[in-house]
Amino acid sequence: MGEFDLIARYFTRPAGQAVLGVGDDCALLQPRPGTQLAVSSDMLVEGRHFFADVNPFALGHKALAVNLSDLAACGAKPLAFTLALALPDIDEDWLAGFSKGLLALADAHGCELVGGDTTQGPLNICITVFGEVPVVQGKSQALLRSGARAGDDVYVSGTLGDARLALEALRGALALPPLMLAQSRLRLEQPTPRVALGQALRGIASAAIDVSDGLLGDLRHILRASKTGATLETALAINLVAACALPDWSAAGIDAEKQLEFALAGGDDYELAFTAPASAREAVQAAARQAQTPVTRIGRIDADPGLRLLDAAGAPMERHYASFDHFA
Amino acid sequence: MGEFDLIARYFTRPAGQAVLGVGDDCALLQPRPGTQLAVSSDMLVEGRHFFADVNPFALGHKALAVNLSDLAACGAKPLAFTLALALPDIDEDWLAGFSKGLLALADAHGCELVGGDTTQGPLNICITVFGEVPVVQGKSQALLRSGARAGDDVYVSGTLGDARLALEALRGALALPPLMLAQSRLRLEQPTPRVALGQALRGIASAAIDVSDGLLGDLRHILRASKTGATLETALAINLVAACALPDWSAAGIDAEKQLEFALAGGDDYELAFTAPASAREAVQAAARQAQTPVTRIGRIDADPGLRLLDAAGAPMERHYASFDHFA
Repeated sequence: MGEFDLIARYFTRPAGQAVLGVGDDCALLQPRPGTQLAVSSDMLVEGRHFFADVNPFALGHKALAVNLSDLAACGAKPLAFTLALALPDIDEDWLAGFSKGLLALADAHGCELVGGDTTQGPLNICITVFGEVPVVQGKSQALLRSGARAGDDVYVSGTLGDARLALEALRGALALPPLMLAQSRLRLEQPTPRVALGQALRGIASAAIDVSDGLLGDLRHILRASKTGATLETALAINLVAACALPDWSAAGIDAEKQLEFALAGGDDYELAFTAPASAREAVQAAARQAQTPVTRIGRIDADPGLRLLDAAGAPMERHYASFDHFA
Repeated sequence: MGEFDLIARYFTRPAGQAVLGVGDDCALLQPRPGTQLAVSSDMLVEGRHFFADVNPFALGHKALAVNLSDLAACGAKPLAFTLALALPDIDEDWLAGFSKGLLALADAHGCELVGGDTTQGPLNICITVFGEVPVVQGKSQALLRSGARAGDDVYVSGTLGDARLALEALRGALALPPLMLAQSRLRLEQPTPRVALGQALRGIASAAIDVSDGLLGDLRHILRASKTGATLETALAINLVAACALPDWSAAGIDAEKQLEFALAGGDDYELAFTAPASAREAVQAAARQAQTPVTRIGRIDADPGLRLLDAAGAPMERHYASFDHFA
């Protein structure tokens, strides 16, 4: 099978919303009047973002999920994506699984594969995703990192730290009971992008980001862009490690300190961290219900720069948590 | 230097036409009313698309050039691009050269870097490029592969085969005189995307494609999409190998057969192959002058499927030329 057969068999589908899809030099997109196009690009590399033996269905899912998560953070509605794929060789079983996982998530979000590239090389997956954001009375409704104001509440969606828990177990650094491993591994390998929540928060949240490198590191991007600081109640964050709520979690020997590290700096969570004025608390909860995605208030934005952590007694904590850096 | 410093130092510039550029979860693009967005994505892999020791300035140029060439083939005006980059390590000299070559070509075409991703991994460059195509009276002005009709002329821009000549020399399969090597190497490493020509051909050309895998292979994509055949006069194509027009070319021991192979199936040319009705011959030449890009008429489209080659005497040729396939 050659390059063009591969594209035809696994990655070509009839064009939907796009004016022109896979098979010409370019795809053509026609954003609706009164909308902007949100664009994001993520590259996944074997050994860095996933293990060589990961289930290809899960990998196809995750490759698109991390991109949809960027759209969610902007409050954009997914429209389309391109896929560039470097493969060491043509493995039809792998391709069948990968394309199935990829396109199942794409279909679930009405996000159409419109083009891309395939080549031989070390396994590398690069997806660029396109979403739609309304412009109302000349003003973009996109959620940005720069809109947080002193006095705003800080929220995070869903759960935190489970992906890191699975990563440590798969690396052999932790031994997890089977149920806990299965649950946390699903969060690592098939994260749920918070697409509906991002859209529901338009006009309500003042700033947003998706949590990919760890909550604290990503929250710092909001603080820097918004020129503010924040205070977080870590006792609220620690409860967000979902797998640890299972009856057998203590058997895994994960102490509270480790749990907190995973919650605050775990990485690969693909939740939304966002801020909203205190006056919008009811609106935030209504958006969360509409999106069927739980959100938890974990702190507040301060005028003072810097990020302060409070323990369960409300006392300041000293510990430093490093954010994930691909080159560190 | 970490991931975020790297982006700040080498790849962040103030947003221009884009509503929002590098530094948030998504970039925001606002296509002008009455336009479509053309999108294309290409991935370049070390050892497959370039040699490990290639000049990073040239590589930065080429990585964007091959994407601009796809926009040119659609007749799109470049607007913006995203860059996803996997690097084995942070080499500041390499990054300085690469970003300089990349951004110099981007500036020359008013094509803005609006976002992307960096990660550690085997060297891999994935660019997704965005261009604008006008829609006139509800009809897209994009040049497609599917518009060729029997009786149309077949054209190719610029020169062919020089990139392949350089590739063979760098692989050690050929010894070239210094001037010929320098000239052909420039074509291999810093190709010129035919952006102005593509736009000038809107409303004139009936079909177009960019020549990346070899003229015949790429022309076949037009024939398949247009459900037509073609007859080419190879004596016209062979004259398009520019380096071979140098006084010392015969000294390199490249016979006419080799020259023809490079012209017809060389690859990496990044010229435009296109078709236009015979009634548009003057308009095609006017577009070529406007774009300051020579074009040569090398054949015609037939109703009969298949691609026929004629020799200098007008007799049919039997030889088969393989197109480049990344997995062959």
